[in-house]
Parts: sequence; C-alpha cells; structure tokens
Amino acid sequence: MAKIITLLTDFGIDSTYPSQMKGVILERQPDAVLVDMSHGVPRHDVRTAAFMLASAAPAFPEGTVHLAVVDPGVGGSRRVLAAEAAGHLYVAPDNGVLTLVTQGGRLMGQPGSPARVVAVENKVHFRHDVSSTFHGRDIFAPVAATLAGGTAIDSLGPQVETIERFPLPKPERQGNTIHGQALYVDPFGNLVTNVPGEMLEPFDRSQIEVVVSGAVIRTLCSAYCEVAPGMLLAYIGSAGLLEVAVNRQSASVRLGAGIGTRITVNLPEAT
Amino acid sequence: MAKIITLLTDFGIDSTYPSQMKGVILERQPDAVLVDMSHGVPRHDVRTAAFMLASAAPAFPEGTVHLAVVDPGVGGSRRVLAAEAAGHLYVAPDNGVLTLVTQGGRLMGQPGSPARVVAVENKVHFRHDVSSTFHGRDIFAPVAATLAGGTAIDSLGPQVETIERFPLPKPERQGNTIHGQALYVDPFGNLVTNVPGEMLEPFDRSQIEVVVSGAVIRTLCSAYCEVAPGMLLAYIGSAGLLEVAVNRQSASVRLGAGIGTRITVNLPEAT
Amino acid sequence: MAKIITLLTDFGIDSTYPSQMKGVILERQPDAVLVDMSHGVPRHDVRTAAFMLASAAPAFPEGTVHLAVVDPGVGGSRRVLAAEAAGHLYVAPDNGVLTLVTQGGRLMGQPGSPARVVAVENKVHFRHDVSSTFHGRDIFAPVAATLAGGTAIDSLGPQVETIERFPLPKPERQGNTIHGQALYVDPFGNLVTNVPGEMLEPFDRSQIEVVVSGAVIRTLCSAYCEVAPGMLLAYIGSAGLLEVAVNRQSASVRLGAGIGTRITVNLPEAT
Repeated sequence: MAKIITLLTDFGIDSTYPSQMKGVILERQPDAVLVDMSHGVPRHDVRTAAFMLASAAPAFPEGTVHLAVVDPGVGGSRRVLAAEAAGHLYVAPDNGVLTLVTQGGRLMGQPGSPARVVAVENKVHFRHDVSSTFHGRDIFAPVAATLAGGTAIDSLGPQVETIERFPLPKPERQGNTIHGQALYVDPFGNLVTNVPGEMLEPFDRSQIEVVVSGAVIRTLCSAYCEVAPGMLLAYIGSAGLLEVAVNRQSASVRLGAGIGTRITVNLPEAT
Repeated sequence: MAKIITLLTDFGIDSTYPSQMKGVILERQPDAVLVDMSHGVPRHDVRTAAFMLASAAPAFPEGTVHLAVVDPGVGGSRRVLAAEAAGHLYVAPDNGVLTLVTQGGRLMGQPGSPARVVAVENKVHFRHDVSSTFHGRDIFAPVAATLAGGTAIDSLGPQVETIERFPLPKPERQGNTIHGQALYVDPFGNLVTNVPGEMLEPFDRSQIEVVVSGAVIRTLCSAYCEVAPGMLLAYIGSAGLLEVAVNRQSASVRLGAGIGTRITVNLPEAT
Repeated sequence: MAKIITLLTDFGIDSTYPSQMKGVILERQPDAVLVDMSHGVPRHDVRTAAFMLASAAPAFPEGTVHLAVVDPGVGGSRRVLAAEAAGHLYVAPDNGVLTLVTQGGRLMGQPGSPARVVAVENKVHFRHDVSSTFHGRDIFAPVAATLAGGTAIDSLGPQVETIERFPLPKPERQGNTIHGQALYVDPFGNLVTNVPGEMLEPFDRSQIEVVVSGAVIRTLCSAYCEVAPGMLLAYIGSAGLLEVAVNRQSASVRLGAGIGTRITVNLPEAT
C-alpha cells in the first residue's frame, strides 16, 4: 500500500519550497501519497506547529509519515529527528516541534505509549548536495521518503533519550476551578485551550462556567448553532479540548485573546 | 480506476482541517485521488460555494465525488445530503450549497437530467467518534470515501424530494433588454453574471451593449487582450456566462460591484 | 511509472481555476501525479514566474512535465509552447516565462544542453470547447496530459528557433567587483540575486563584502543562525545564487529592496 507523507511547514502556500520538497520525495518514492497538512504555520512558530501537528496527525492512518519543517535553526547545530509515536512516524528538527506528539498524548487527554526517537545521522539518506538554508528539501524530505519506503527509524541514527521540548502548559485544578490557557487560535479565531474534555465530562454541562478575558460563558454547548450568531460559546472541540468561539465571528478578535490567554473553568458539584 | 474526490470548504488553506478530512478519506480509500477545489470559500458563504461548485465540477470526469463543506449549521438539525447529478456525485450539508448542481444546470445554460438526492442517515459510514463541530472530518469525508469506493447513494439513506435552495436569480428578458446580476466575483475581480452565453449567441457581438454600475461597454469581446490594460470589457467567460472585467485590473474594485450588482444587456436586432 | 505534472499559475490558491485544470488532466491521465508548484505568482508577473519555475523544477525527477500558466495574453495571438530542456518538459505561453529554463541554465551557474521548443498547433490535443479566457484549462492542461502520457513534443507542432525572452540581467565583474541585482524576493523577504555561487567560490568567505541599499555585509555566511535575529546576512541560497536576508525578518522590508535592486560584491584577492 502506498505510504502517506504529510507536510507541515512555515514556507507559505505561495512559495515553491513545499513543491521542491515534494519533487525530492517523489524522485525517491514515486508511489508516495503527499498531503499538505499546512504551509501556513506562522513563521518560526514552533509551538503553533507542535499543536497543529498533534491535532491533525491522529486523523491519518497508522504508518503515515509526518514531515514537520519549521526550522529557524537551519544550518546550525540542531539535530534532525525521526520519531515513532502511537503508530505514526515523524521527521522534524530538534527544536520543540515534536513536544506534543512524543509525550504520550496526555495533553490531548489520551494516554499513549512512549515515543521512540532517533537522531538522524546517516547521511546516505540525504540529498547529494545539501544547502545550508533549505534542509527541508535536502535532508528532511529525502529522510521522510526513506521512512515511507519502509526503512526502520533505527537505521537512521542512534536513539536519543532527551529532545528539545517547550514546557507543557498543563491545566491546573484547584477545588472546583480549573486554570487553563489558550494553546492555539485557529483560522476562524476560535481559542483552543489546554483543558481536555475528559476533565469536564463528569459535570452537568449546563452548569459549567467558562471565564476568559472578563467574559463569562454560563454553559457548555455542543454546537455553534446553539447560540445566536455573534454570541460567545464554549464547547469541546474537534481535538478533544475545550474551545471558546463566537458563532460566525472571531473569538480572538472579540476578546483580544491569543495563545497564552488565561481561561478559568468553574465547575459545579460532580453529578 | 482510482476515484477522484474533490474538496471545497471555507476552512482556509492555512488550517489543518482540510488535511484531517484527507486523512480520514485515505484511511478508507487509499487509492482515492484527492483534489482541492478550493478552501477559500468566504466563511459560511453558501451561495458563493454553490457557484464555485457548479462552475468547477464539470471540468472533472464523470464519477467524480465532490465534497462541499460550507456548514454554518454544523451540529444542528440540518441534514447531510448525497446527490447524483449529470454523472457526478456530491456530498454536502442541506443548506443550499447544492442549489445549482441539482437544478438541471439551466442557469449554466446546459439542460441536464434531474438529480437524485438522498438524506444520509446510515451512520455505519460515519467516523467512530463524531464531534459536534467538525462533521467535515467525521461525517462528510468518510461518506465521500464510501461513495468513491462504489457504494450507491441509495444505500446511504432515503431519497428526498425537497432540499434547501436559495432562489435562483434568473436573467429576465424584456424586449431587447436582458436584466441580470452578478453571481460571483472571482479572485481577479471579474464579475461573473447569471446571463448565459446562449442568450447572446444570436446577436452581432459588436452591437451588444452591457451596462453595469453606470458604465457602458459597447461591444462583446472574445479575449481580455482585445482592450487596452485598464479598460472595461464584457465577454463570455469560461463558465459559459457573461462576465465583466477590467483587463489586468479588478472590475469589482473599479465599479464598486459585487454579488447581486445589476447588469443590463441591450441587444441589437437578431441577425 | 506515473508521470508527475507540476502546476505554476497566477490564479490564486483560493480560486477553483487550478482544480479545473487538474480535472481536465485527470480525465486524460488518471495516473498523473499532480503537484502544485505555486498558484501565487503575482498576477501577470512573467519574470517572477520564470524565476520560480527555473528554481523549483530541478528538484523534480527527469521526465516531469511542468505546466506554467501566467498568461496575460490569453485569447490573443501569443503561441503555445512545449519545450524539453535538461530532461524536463514544459508547457507554457510564449511570453517569456520559459526564458530561464531554456537558456542552458547559465544564470543558475549550471551549464545545460540547449532546449528544444515546439509551437503547439495540433488542436487534437486541446479540449473540445476552447474558451477565449481560460486556455490553462482548455489548451495547456490537456497538452500537459498528452506529454505526460508519453507523446513526443515533436508531434505537437513545428520546432521553433526563437521564442519570447526577457533580457537576462547577467552579473558583471569589473576587477574585484561584481555588479548584480535582485532577481526575486521570496515569501520570507529574502533577496535572491543573479550572482551564482560559483563566482564567489574561489574567495575567502570571511573577506567577501556585499553592499545593498547602502548596507554593507562584511562576510559570507553559511546559515541564517550565524548572525543574531534581526541582523543582515549574505549567503549562497538553495537555488545556488547569492542571497541577502535578515535573520527571522524581511530583508526586502528592511532595505526597501525588490526585484532589480542593485547588489555589489567586493571580492578579496583570490586564495
């Protein structure tokens, strides 16, 4: 069966850089099925890339190779990583972009097996001429093609125990209050928080109160259309995390909120 | 032969949402050929989506499955539709997005056979966990994969006679005058009208006069380059409809015109 | 083996026009592997398209068909060209977009064999109904599909000796000074110049001085990260050409520089 390779970069959809990576992959794996995850990561924003990768990868079949190139340190000493986690394969620079997919999935609320990670050092899989500024094309793409061809990650280089990670902003519960924050703002302006749906499941949805930027949302909805257009709502989103949105508008703009904005959840007594 | 599935959404090309739909499709139909029709439908703009779908679908081979997810009512009571029309298959919410492709194509000037439409109720084709906010991934994508695999639309649910439609703005002819309007503004700022080329065919092109926003265009051209850069022109566009453009600039900006702007065509005597 | 077809246009990623081209190709070549090179060429900007094409094509395997439709003269008298150069195939309007890929690659510093070019006149390969405004769909796409199917370019029409070209801005060396200019500004704001890396190779990198818009860069780096964020640097980029960038920012914005901006390189004595 043809192997799927997804591509996540900050190169911009209008540049030819993603296509150059694809050309290199197809030369090595003509049967690879290439899927753009996004080329619109805000430039050099490793944290947003980590979230996009962790939230989109689970929609793909096991065995998919995910290529994530947000690489401000290209040409420097940062390592090239290949990882296997929850049945998926990843190729990325060692700069934090794999933080979420390799931590057993606990932020996403799903327990997972620990990841195996190697530092890619076997240059035989690289492109013949490696530029100093476009490792996406010259190193990451051919390594992803190699993995899609069935090569085991262990043959790429030595296993590593410690990789670059950013601190996980875990939600904290104090009594009946959960203190969380926005992890990601999606293109609709919806705020995706670090509060997993599981933390809210035991409670009566109609009595859950969400507070963000001074606004109080007095119930947990199931769908946008439960409130009138222009109204704030809170709900468990498609990544399994609490989200705050404005029906048909941007919550980020309305609330002046972004990544890191604090969210407080007031819980009723458990039912 | 591999089945083609096209994707039309308002999710934005920079989001990972289209890719998540593709992951779900490829898990079910690894051989599907996925083509982005556009992910740049203005958010929640069902009418523009209906036009984009109806104008782009005919360029694909018969048997193509077109997945159109512009779905402001996601999670509410709107139905999920599957349709067969003019040899193409469609999956979309019941909110008007199928208005043009299921009406026999008369707006486009081509007579067509009536469409067959079913309400998709057979949940066996849905994803195991259905979120309340992302039916594109959890319902529409797997249903499209099912159709691409050869399942007949009738096995998805009961046939329906009436679906949501927006009123068709049909062009009206009074004597030697046609009253029409702009249906769509393309990314170049060209105004695509609801006047089919067939209505103008009997007449001497050099004597056809088009009036829009007070500007008078005194002939029907064949190509942009028949007028100087910066000049207005009218012509039969690639969708078979009368269009108004400014060579190398935006007619929408120049004329302050948009969807719904009135266009008047003054015809000479038939030749 | 499935043939790769790349698509480069100025239609914009949000329009359905690229997808219509793909539908036409897939109807003729269901096994074609379609790769978007970019649909974000600035509208009608033939020179930028020529650069994007020449810099991205070499990343693809030999035998790839590159379809480049930036075509302000659509519907007029400009010819349709098919070309074979350095093992790659090209289909494009005769308006200069093939200037760089058909000139033996000297601007890029790599000697190449001369290109063979034909004027596509054999209408049997066109779509049945050819519109006057969308030859990308009705002529270029089906011709590309024909080439991907293995038809030789000679069967498409007569060989031509002269095609439209824009004058090549070649770098000039006077003593120890090279006078060059910016060919392209990439989406990161990096200035790609017409100075091939080969011209600088004989010299001590630490003594090469690059002057642009009054700013003096006193060394040639290997990677962005050799300078602090916000600092200017010069380096040989991924297209093999001298580039000027600002680490993590836009050199184009910082320097007020764009296509055509003069770059001066002061060389030390050869080592």
